Amino acid sequence: MQSLWLENQSLSLRDIPKPHKPVEALIRVRLSGICGTDLELLRGYYPFTGVLGHEFVGEVVSVLESDGSLRRKVQSQETFNSIDWVGKRVVGEINVACGVCEQCQHGHPTHCEQRSVLGIANRDGVHAGYTTLPLANLHLVPDEAAVFTEPLAAALEFQEQVHIQPTDRVLLIGAGRLGQLIAQTLALTGCDLRVVARHAPQQALLESREIRLIPQEAVLPRRWDVVVEATGSSSGFEMARRAVRPRGTVVLKSTYRGEMTLNWSPFVVDEITIIGSRCGPFAPALRLLESGQVDSSILIAGQYPLAHALEAMAAAQQPGMLKVLLKP
Amino acid sequence: MQSLWLENQSLSLRDIPKPHKPVEALIRVRLSGICGTDLELLRGYYPFTGVLGHEFVGEVVSVLESDGSLRRKVQSQETFNSIDWVGKRVVGEINVACGVCEQCQHGHPTHCEQRSVLGIANRDGVHAGYTTLPLANLHLVPDEAAVFTEPLAAALEFQEQVHIQPTDRVLLIGAGRLGQLIAQTLALTGCDLRVVARHAPQQALLESREIRLIPQEAVLPRRWDVVVEATGSSSGFEMARRAVRPRGTVVLKSTYRGEMTLNWSPFVVDEITIIGSRCGPFAPALRLLESGQVDSSILIAGQYPLAHALEAMAAAQQPGMLKVLLKP
Repeated sequence: MQSLWLENQSLSLRDIPKPHKPVEALIRVRLSGICGTDLELLRGYYPFTGVLGHEFVGEVVSVLESDGSLRRKVQSQETFNSIDWVGKRVVGEINVACGVCEQCQHGHPTHCEQRSVLGIANRDGVHAGYTTLPLANLHLVPDEAAVFTEPLAAALEFQEQVHIQPTDRVLLIGAGRLGQLIAQTLALTGCDLRVVARHAPQQALLESREIRLIPQEAVLPRRWDVVVEATGSSSGFEMARRAVRPRGTVVLKSTYRGEMTLNWSPFVVDEITIIGSRCGPFAPALRLLESGQVDSSILIAGQYPLAHALEAMAAAQQPGMLKVLLKP
Repeated sequence: MQSLWLENQSLSLRDIPKPHKPVEALIRVRLSGICGTDLELLRGYYPFTGVLGHEFVGEVVSVLESDGSLRRKVQSQETFNSIDWVGKRVVGEINVACGVCEQCQHGHPTHCEQRSVLGIANRDGVHAGYTTLPLANLHLVPDEAAVFTEPLAAALEFQEQVHIQPTDRVLLIGAGRLGQLIAQTLALTGCDLRVVARHAPQQALLESREIRLIPQEAVLPRRWDVVVEATGSSSGFEMARRAVRPRGTVVLKSTYRGEMTLNWSPFVVDEITIIGSRCGPFAPALRLLESGQVDSSILIAGQYPLAHALEAMAAAQQPGMLKVLLKP
C-alpha cells in the first residue's frame, strides 16, 4: 500500500509493506488528519524519517503475535485481550511506552524515556494504508468523526495541568487547527474567554460557536488570569507575556522553532507560571465528541485521497487553513 | 541621621531627615541585613535612587498623622490602630500596596500595580537610622533575630505556589544567603533534598543541619520532581533545565541579569512548569524563627556599624559571603 513518506524534508509516496510487530494491532487506516506537527516535521523542526501522521481512525485487521517477554511489559494486557478487537473501529494514543522506565512506573507513560511516537519519533505513522499500535493504546469509537480525538485530547491536556476556574479571564492566542479545539473546550468551562484569531475563516468558526473574539490591539496588558499560546510564534509568546497578570499562568501549547531570547526577571518579579503542554487524555476527548459538546466537523477544510497526499500537505500549509483529511 | 544612599550605581552616606508620611509608623532601625537584591541594585539591574535595604528589625517611634482620604485605603486599619505600636519591636513587609487597584482587590497586594517597595522601588529603605512603613505592613517580633524574617518569607514563598510533597526529589541549586534559608525550609517538608553548593562555608553550614549536598557533576538529568534555582545565573538555569523530570517544576527564586536565549520546545514536549517566585508571607516565617525550626543565626558572616556601610557592602559582595548585618 502507498504511504506518505518523509525524508530530509522531502515528501514522497512509497510502497510500504504491511507492518508486523509483536503485541500490536494491525490497523487499516480509514481516515487521517494533517496536524501542525506534520508540517513542522516537514520543515525539519525535529529529525524524522518515515511515514507521517498521528491523527486517525481505523479498523483492527488482526492482533499480531507476541513473544512472552514483551507481553509482560504491557500494562493491563488481560483487559485488552478480553476484547475481540478484530473488525473494531478504533483510534489510538500516539505515545508507545515501555511500561518499565521511571516515567512509566510513575504513571507518566506519555513521557516514557524509551517511547516511540506515532508518525513523530521512531514509529511509522498513519498517512498510510495500514498502521500498528499496541492494544493498550486503542480506544473503541463509534464513527469516523473520532479522527479528531487526538487533537482534541491535546487541546484538553492543559486542563489536566491547570485548573481553569469559571471566573477566570482567559486569553487564547491563535485559532488554527488546535486553537479552534482549545477554544471550544475552554468555552465549556464558563470562563471569560477571548480569542485572538488572525484569519477570517477562523473568526467565522469561533463566532458560529458564540465564542468571543478580541482584536490583538485591544488585549489589555497584565490583565489575564490564564493565557494560552497556540501560535508557536515568538510574537505570540511575546503577546502572552505582556497579557498575563501578575501571578497568572501562561500555557504553551505549541513548540517553537529555534531559540528565543528574553528577559526572565519580569517572570520572577511578577511570579508568572509558564507551563508546557503536549499530548492529552483520549477518554474525555471521546466523551466530548460523542456528546456533541465539541463540534470538530466544522473544522474540516478538505479531504483528499491518500494518493493525493502531497497536494493535501501543500493545501494544509496555506495560512489560516483548518483541518485537511486524508482518505486511504 | 546617616543613611546608605544609592545613586547611579554609586554608594554614599548621606544625612537624611527623619521621614514623615501619613498613616505610617516612624521606625528606629535596630538592625538591617544586606540582601542579594541590594547588590543587584548597586550593579544597576533595576534603576533605583535612594536609601538601600529592606531587611530590618526596629522599634516604632511614633505613628504619623494621616488625612482621611488615605486612611480609608488601608485595609483593617482599625485592627492595627487598636495596638499601641509606640515602643514595639517590629519587622515590616516590604511591599506597600494601594489597596484599591485590581491586584489589591484580588488579594495580591505584593503585586499592587502602584506599589512602592522598601529600599527597592519608590521608597527609601532601612540601611538608615529611621524608616517608615504603613502600620498594616508591621509584625510584632520578640527579638533582633527577626531581621531574617523577610528573606525567610521569600524562601517560603514558592511553598505557597508549589506543593512540595514529602516523597518529592528536590534539587536546590545555590546555597548563598537565600539558598541557605530555602534549604532549611525544604528540609522541614521531609522531601528528598539535595543541594548544589559551590563554596566551602556554604557546604559546612548545610552539613551542620544534616542537609545533603550533591556535586554538580553527580546531578542526574531528567530526574528531579522540583528544581529550585537560587543562583540567578544562566548556568544555574541551564542546570535546572537539564535536571528537572518530564512534567516536573522549575522554581526561579532569583532575577536574571539581562536576557537569556534558549530553545523552548523541550519545555513544551516535556510539559515542564516554570514558576517565578519573589516576596513571601511573614507570619509563617516568624513562626519558624520563633520555634527554632529554622536557624538563621548560623548565616551571620559579619556585623558592621552603619557608618561603615560601604565596607559592609564590599564585604557582602565577596563570592560565597553569607549574611552581613548593619547596626545603625
